[in-house]
Amino acid sequence: MKYANRMDRIKASEIRELLKLTQRPEIISFAGGLPAPELFPLEAVEKAMVETMQKQGARALQYGPTEGYDPLRKHIAGLMGAMGIETDYNNILVTNGSQQGLDFAGRVFLNEDDYVIVESPSYLGAINAFKAYECNFLEVDTDADGMLMDQLEATIREHGDKVKMIYVIPDFQNPSGRTWSLERRQQLLALAKQYDLPILEDNPYGLLRFEGEHMPSIRSMDDDGRVIFLGTFSKILIPGFRLGWVEADQEVLQKFILCKQGADLQASTVNQITAANLMDEFDIYEHIENLKRVYRKRRDAMLKAMDAYFPEGVTYTRPTGGLFTWVELPERVNTTELGVKAIEHLVAFVPGASFFPNSGNQHCMRINYSMMNEEKIEEGIKRLGELIHKEL
Amino acid sequence: MKYANRMDRIKASEIRELLKLTQRPEIISFAGGLPAPELFPLEAVEKAMVETMQKQGARALQYGPTEGYDPLRKHIAGLMGAMGIETDYNNILVTNGSQQGLDFAGRVFLNEDDYVIVESPSYLGAINAFKAYECNFLEVDTDADGMLMDQLEATIREHGDKVKMIYVIPDFQNPSGRTWSLERRQQLLALAKQYDLPILEDNPYGLLRFEGEHMPSIRSMDDDGRVIFLGTFSKILIPGFRLGWVEADQEVLQKFILCKQGADLQASTVNQITAANLMDEFDIYEHIENLKRVYRKRRDAMLKAMDAYFPEGVTYTRPTGGLFTWVELPERVNTTELGVKAIEHLVAFVPGASFFPNSGNQHCMRINYSMMNEEKIEEGIKRLGELIHKEL
Repeated sequence: MKYANRMDRIKASEIRELLKLTQRPEIISFAGGLPAPELFPLEAVEKAMVETMQKQGARALQYGPTEGYDPLRKHIAGLMGAMGIETDYNNILVTNGSQQGLDFAGRVFLNEDDYVIVESPSYLGAINAFKAYECNFLEVDTDADGMLMDQLEATIREHGDKVKMIYVIPDFQNPSGRTWSLERRQQLLALAKQYDLPILEDNPYGLLRFEGEHMPSIRSMDDDGRVIFLGTFSKILIPGFRLGWVEADQEVLQKFILCKQGADLQASTVNQITAANLMDEFDIYEHIENLKRVYRKRRDAMLKAMDAYFPEGVTYTRPTGGLFTWVELPERVNTTELGVKAIEHLVAFVPGASFFPNSGNQHCMRINYSMMNEEKIEEGIKRLGELIHKEL
Repeated sequence: MKYANRMDRIKASEIRELLKLTQRPEIISFAGGLPAPELFPLEAVEKAMVETMQKQGARALQYGPTEGYDPLRKHIAGLMGAMGIETDYNNILVTNGSQQGLDFAGRVFLNEDDYVIVESPSYLGAINAFKAYECNFLEVDTDADGMLMDQLEATIREHGDKVKMIYVIPDFQNPSGRTWSLERRQQLLALAKQYDLPILEDNPYGLLRFEGEHMPSIRSMDDDGRVIFLGTFSKILIPGFRLGWVEADQEVLQKFILCKQGADLQASTVNQITAANLMDEFDIYEHIENLKRVYRKRRDAMLKAMDAYFPEGVTYTRPTGGLFTWVELPERVNTTELGVKAIEHLVAFVPGASFFPNSGNQHCMRINYSMMNEEKIEEGIKRLGELIHKEL
């Protein structure tokens, strides 16, 4: 079989292959980015499903509009408001999780050999999505406040017109756990204006802030429609519906809608109607408060265990929200090899190399703290600490 | 904003824009390809949903594997068996309807300016999906038995290595309503072997045969893994779950799985588990028999009304299954213009030009008979007949 050239660039996601291994119940897994299943509102979802079938059954099982189910789009516009972004439901396209928004962003903006600017490190799933469009990646280093702006501008200047998009996760970034400062957000937007570039703002975790002040999203400061915002229900409600959204100004949103038509016509009608019915009755903001309480405790347990069991010379993010922390080991440790040993010791993480599209950085790891309880967190980090000690 | 070149080729689907107009309840619509909602098994679906939530709630709302939920893949393998294709569940990837399989086929096989060979006419949604990969289309004329093989071979020879895929809907084709003969299927497979080309066999309607002998699918005759089969629950069960599948040999299926990872990670977990639970209890084959009874009656009413109300010189397919018939008017009639007048007279169809990727053929129309009852079919065709009379 002769395949398209792009297939040479698309590789299996290490995370998803790893997740298969880590499904064994005896493994303490810090590898996935999964929400805690014990917090899913099972009864409320079941009730909403029954209501959907009894009141809107035939409609729920039929085809629906590409843009999405209007009452759900209105709920999403409300959620956007809660994130500080005033918008209208007409500016929202319902997608299959925000992963599909990433795919469409590549489709809308990238020609072969164009450049996407990403944070270094960046989200593995986004890197994989963009690769299907045969682009190249320009990594810009980050510190605790976000991308380094001088380096960003130098990178844009160096590559000129071939740069087509800047992709960022400003809140509780995956994988680094870091959050951009207000100043960097403003500077990014100013640079994007100066060089006339779109910004893809991916925000799955923004509502999961444990402490400190809310940072305005870049989209909330956007006055000329160059920011495309991606949101999702996966981390604040449930991932199994596969419902996310793109929020953008009309001109660019229409392009995303065309992508949706060609790609799969529409998101699941029944899931959209059920999600809308659920949000009519169920207080998603209270639910998010509950998630934050639990995840904050797990974050605390994670950092406490790292403080206790990780050797000198190992550093890690102290995230103020979201699902991840990021660990940097001394450069001589190869975490891809360490990951194999860790699974033998029944503990799992994602080796850091996966998050750097241009490779390198073998000495980091992404650690998730949302899935495991405090006891398992302590035990898992203890095991991992012992393995790291042996490496040094 | 600067968009990728491919966005110049992607246009809004006329069908979906038209469907918005035809949602007005006073319109008799033969435009969509929608299944009859009064036949949806509402109670059985509700029961399956409740069972899913009560027995597998947390699993159903969580992320799941990219390939799909194994019990559903096994049910799909069973359905494939009922279609005469012996396969294993490992050869199945669950997608968001077969539309997503079309998108992935473009992604897997097509570079910019490559050629896809399609039947003339062909399915509009496939044409739109492939356009995202900046391909060109080679249309091969069809008669009542399928593609004309001499023309197909001449087309392949003329365009040589730039031809990358042959796309066909051999059973009750959308839009023509025609079904390929066994001989043509065999000849197509032989030519594809000779010129080493993959065949994309799209089969949403194959189980909806009203009369006559089952025709073996091309995939069932495939002995070297060059046929990729697309199936869907949309026409035989419900479209609102957005569940379809790709069935292919392992090597090529792995490419489709990589596409799924990057595009949206996985199909909805809850919908997959619910569909599997539904099929454990609910007799889908009996349901399909029921659909066939109703659609056959509507097909009969449609052809009877066309015989009665359409003028001399108008020809149409007498389909032996599926959802559509195809009407050819004298060449001087422009059905795109006629379609606008028809909506003014509260009847709708899809103008034929949409189904020819290289344009032309303004004198045809696609007529759906699955959505409207016999009374509306007669009234709608009567109105349409009057409009056609005026055009001649």
